[in-house]
Amino acid sequence: MTTSWPAAVRIVEVGPRDGLQNEPFPLPVAARVELIRRLVGAGLKSVEAGAFVSPKRVPQMDGSAAVLARVLADPPPPTGATAGAVAGVVAGAVDYPVLVPNLQGFEAALAAGAQTVAVFAAASETFSRRNINCSIAESLVRFRAVAGAARAAGVKLRGYVSCVAGCPYEGAVAPRAVAGVAAALRALGCDEISLGDTIGTGNPDSIRRMLEAVLREVPAERLAGHYHDTYGMAVANVYASLELGLTVFDAAVGGLGGCPYAPGAAGNVATEELVWLFGGLGIATGVDLEALVDTAVWISTRLGRAPASRVARAVLARRQHR
Amino acid sequence: MTTSWPAAVRIVEVGPRDGLQNEPFPLPVAARVELIRRLVGAGLKSVEAGAFVSPKRVPQMDGSAAVLARVLADPPPPTGATAGAVAGVVAGAVDYPVLVPNLQGFEAALAAGAQTVAVFAAASETFSRRNINCSIAESLVRFRAVAGAARAAGVKLRGYVSCVAGCPYEGAVAPRAVAGVAAALRALGCDEISLGDTIGTGNPDSIRRMLEAVLREVPAERLAGHYHDTYGMAVANVYASLELGLTVFDAAVGGLGGCPYAPGAAGNVATEELVWLFGGLGIATGVDLEALVDTAVWISTRLGRAPASRVARAVLARRQHR
Repeated sequence: MTTSWPAAVRIVEVGPRDGLQNEPFPLPVAARVELIRRLVGAGLKSVEAGAFVSPKRVPQMDGSAAVLARVLADPPPPTGATAGAVAGVVAGAVDYPVLVPNLQGFEAALAAGAQTVAVFAAASETFSRRNINCSIAESLVRFRAVAGAARAAGVKLRGYVSCVAGCPYEGAVAPRAVAGVAAALRALGCDEISLGDTIGTGNPDSIRRMLEAVLREVPAERLAGHYHDTYGMAVANVYASLELGLTVFDAAVGGLGGCPYAPGAAGNVATEELVWLFGGLGIATGVDLEALVDTAVWISTRLGRAPASRVARAVLARRQHR
Repeated sequence: MTTSWPAAVRIVEVGPRDGLQNEPFPLPVAARVELIRRLVGAGLKSVEAGAFVSPKRVPQMDGSAAVLARVLADPPPPTGATAGAVAGVVAGAVDYPVLVPNLQGFEAALAAGAQTVAVFAAASETFSRRNINCSIAESLVRFRAVAGAARAAGVKLRGYVSCVAGCPYEGAVAPRAVAGVAAALRALGCDEISLGDTIGTGNPDSIRRMLEAVLREVPAERLAGHYHDTYGMAVANVYASLELGLTVFDAAVGGLGGCPYAPGAAGNVATEELVWLFGGLGIATGVDLEALVDTAVWISTRLGRAPASRVARAVLARRQHR
């Protein structure tokens, strides 16, 4: 089985949103802006900047409009240390998606300058009801309005599907349920659909079966793999997805975040782990690993702990050993 | 690519040796005996019990004769909590390999009752010289004497090859170098050859290339994958090895140990991660995950920290959440 890999993949850095949203304490706007600036400095070209959701329900995302506006008003330049790694990247080429739950959220995001917005559906009915308080079908109706408004405004649309491998309420989720929601999001006009293993119970076999079902509905170039490392399977799941043709992967610097259904468990797969994996496979990411580890240390320190990723620990250990 | 998995795999628990050997502080004999007893209680059937090496060089393994003798004199019964998971396991069926560097070590191991001994070679010349103070060829001559004595005594022989993907001194290691050493160990009479990614720099592609070379010399049923999780690649590497027909994998409870070449980095892949992976793939291990996590917590607490594995963190989080 000799696999021919793509020359490059794109990492969507979700630390400032999916990561921080699942950290116990909210960070102020200035710290979130600084995190995004550092991530762009390390070479990341897609950095999820926030969520236009209820600050009562998700206090961690309060002030997302200010975060986005500040980042857009003063685009972070590539840092000196990583200029080589991000050569050719100009401010305008960096994308800052934000989550919007509905038309109201979309309008606030548009006012803040959003160029890409993301809607979030689930592949599990119970999760959909508990997470966004409506059925899957109702959420798709709601997103249709967002999609129309986004198209009219020339804003790109990303769609999330959560619980693609398992649901905290329903257990295993059928691949055809995921495929159905992915197809519906594509039909709504989503440019990219991110498949989220929200509770990290997927393994390379179940992720593969899920992807095979989704790929019958949506081509690989429209898909992103979004895997949580709750049970340490995320890197293997990314590798399996790469074998099926996916070239976009979501990850969070320092393995930020956690699992609301298992507080204390690991969060998103660490961006460092993916940069290391792709580097070893000879696939370009444009990300400077050393600058990324610096960023993982910076944000983890800000949160009062050490970076959760294996790669950050190893890189730090090597630095100290020298 | 539909893969047909084996019904069962064997996990060789190396925590009490490879794990503890790379922890900064030595544990007393009684604690090591207790660890082994708990591991057997959780259902592990191959538990590396110690190393008959210089206690000056490796103080963590001092007293290995006493550890082995105590475990053999009073074989741990399966615990009540896990009796179901280990049904059919009788004391005699559990194997306790110990490391021996030379004939003198072998004789001490034999006197302590060893039924399986392991010799350790390297695929990198520089590593061989720095680790065991002789060339690869010289080490094989030394092991020939051990192999002869083991055969004469009816003792099983395991062979380790370290640096199968990378060497801390030489960088990348050629697959044919690994294949050559593996073939030599097989020719000496090793019943099983464990391929060690000592510094964890392997990825699914490089591990696959290495295995393809080794499999031209040694059949899969004689091989074990021994991967360190320094850069978070170990689970993906195990999965890739499974695809190539390997059915024996080394792991350490709680992700014990570390990397002497990067102090602070992660150690062996955690046994919990592999039990979770194989469980998800429908492959039996005979190991009770809850009892294993209890053991990970027990030994990690003994070492003054939390378990390093994602699975232990998630299982503990779920327990607390209930």
